[in-house]
Amino acid sequence: MKKLINSVDSVVTDALRGLAAAHPSLRVDIENKVVFRADAPRPGKVGLVSGGGSGHEPLHAGFVGYGMLDAACPGEVFTSPVPDQLIEAAKGVDGGAGVLHIVKNYTGDVLNFEMAAELSGDEGVEVATVLVNDDVAVQDSLFTAGRRGTGATLFVEKIAGALAETGAPLAEVARVAREVNERSRSFGVALTPGTVPAAGKPTFELSDTEIELGIGIHGEPGRTRAPMREAREIARTAMDAIDADLPLSGETLVMVNGMGGTPLIELYIVFAEVEAYLREKGATAVRSLVGNYVTSLDMQGFSVTTCSPTGELTRLWDAPVETPALRWGR
Amino acid sequence: MKKLINSVDSVVTDALRGLAAAHPSLRVDIENKVVFRADAPRPGKVGLVSGGGSGHEPLHAGFVGYGMLDAACPGEVFTSPVPDQLIEAAKGVDGGAGVLHIVKNYTGDVLNFEMAAELSGDEGVEVATVLVNDDVAVQDSLFTAGRRGTGATLFVEKIAGALAETGAPLAEVARVAREVNERSRSFGVALTPGTVPAAGKPTFELSDTEIELGIGIHGEPGRTRAPMREAREIARTAMDAIDADLPLSGETLVMVNGMGGTPLIELYIVFAEVEAYLREKGATAVRSLVGNYVTSLDMQGFSVTTCSPTGELTRLWDAPVETPALRWGR
Repeated sequence: MKKLINSVDSVVTDALRGLAAAHPSLRVDIENKVVFRADAPRPGKVGLVSGGGSGHEPLHAGFVGYGMLDAACPGEVFTSPVPDQLIEAAKGVDGGAGVLHIVKNYTGDVLNFEMAAELSGDEGVEVATVLVNDDVAVQDSLFTAGRRGTGATLFVEKIAGALAETGAPLAEVARVAREVNERSRSFGVALTPGTVPAAGKPTFELSDTEIELGIGIHGEPGRTRAPMREAREIARTAMDAIDADLPLSGETLVMVNGMGGTPLIELYIVFAEVEAYLREKGATAVRSLVGNYVTSLDMQGFSVTTCSPTGELTRLWDAPVETPALRWGR
Repeated sequence: MKKLINSVDSVVTDALRGLAAAHPSLRVDIENKVVFRADAPRPGKVGLVSGGGSGHEPLHAGFVGYGMLDAACPGEVFTSPVPDQLIEAAKGVDGGAGVLHIVKNYTGDVLNFEMAAELSGDEGVEVATVLVNDDVAVQDSLFTAGRRGTGATLFVEKIAGALAETGAPLAEVARVAREVNERSRSFGVALTPGTVPAAGKPTFELSDTEIELGIGIHGEPGRTRAPMREAREIARTAMDAIDADLPLSGETLVMVNGMGGTPLIELYIVFAEVEAYLREKGATAVRSLVGNYVTSLDMQGFSVTTCSPTGELTRLWDAPVETPALRWGR
């Protein structure tokens, strides 16, 4: 294993030091492992808190800032954040309007966020929760009861974050966050596995001619292994899976997301095929993201996430955002 | 070789289709392989044209837009763009104030940009050229007489682009572009090689315990191979090389750039060490970029680029920019 780390034990704290040094717009509590907007808490504004295992960067800390998250809690690599982190985050972002937990559907995350929500409630912070479970590939995978939460997390964080910025109340922000999740679907493909530093070896094995269709962002098994094939066919397989679950039509938000080790030129090739597929279905990619957003360490591969938005959701998508990894329009 | 492509012959055009579909702010001439700002030419504004081999995305096409490039010409993977592309680009961006060629110092690029500048001149388009040669690792490497051009290309394109946006004349834009290059230095490190699609195998070989210090962005040999070591030591080696060439002090623009296959979490770990090194030298990272900007396909590794700016250069760095890969502040 060759990785740019100082030791397997200090991966997360060392990266947090770098994050703090690179982004003056963030306040990074390295001891408690919480990344805050520098201006948190904002009085009267619902505070958005997300988190999860590290190794998916820029998710979640890269999405902390104006118009998106108020705080992110990174766990160890592929390991849920602990309740203490989440409680610290809620305290630090609550401006009196309550806190929304945005939780990817993995058993450990769900339990720890639940416990934190209860304890934060005991301390007088109202907490609502949205569970993200957009991945159509499999039910009840490793680490998950039900569907996994993947790329749609970004859509939820962006759109709910924009609404919270307007001063909307907690119930309304939670409602919209859930609506984004319900309207979103994802499917991922791996060409190669990633390597968790503490494990020192790839999370699974794939031969030089095989790919994994329906991969999870921790290397959880997908639907099937298949021979390597053209980007066009791989993209169609992903889109067919999404379309079979929630038929694609009309205006669509689309993300072609790299898994961490995939060159951008390949992601654009995939995007061309995804966009052509949408047109065939009579759908239109009205907003697009192409790049590394919800990664899995150094895995090569991609995921596609679609969202069929209402006009309100598209307007919130377009609202200004200013975070390390996503910014436009202010 | 597993890559998300349709065929090795269609990599660049397929990616250009994706780029066009993803970014309505661009006008992509797929036949001539030129990526324009949708609003080019801008009357009275110097047109900035860059280009080079593909495989370094988002460089250059990802930097086309308001406040940065007016056009980019992607060659085949790791292959110079041809003069016809560059002439087409100059025609399409010349708003009467001339065109600045931003050229990375590789023999093929230099020759083709020179030829294009002459021919564009014959057609009445005034062309000035800035050569970028920031890589301190080696002199006269594979493909290059003198130093290679790498990460500083982004600094030159951003800062000269901001100046051109103010309506500054060609000579002034060229002067500032050269000044940025002169004040910038880079050094790269590879953990693994990248694979050119048409070749089908890695551009060089590295054992599981070895790294290449001073790597070029096409996998050209660096200064030396060395055993794998902590991120801290690797970062110090890179910074020592830069500091030995142009002593670091005062306000510094810094980029820790991923080579394409490196997880973002590792780049932040490297950034923490780079920033600590600067502080030791009495320098300050006043502006920072951490991410994949000047890549080498799926190579794992990073480069550091520093620039010791004047106040004018920092102000131009801060000016609004709106491109697919870099945007802030408008």
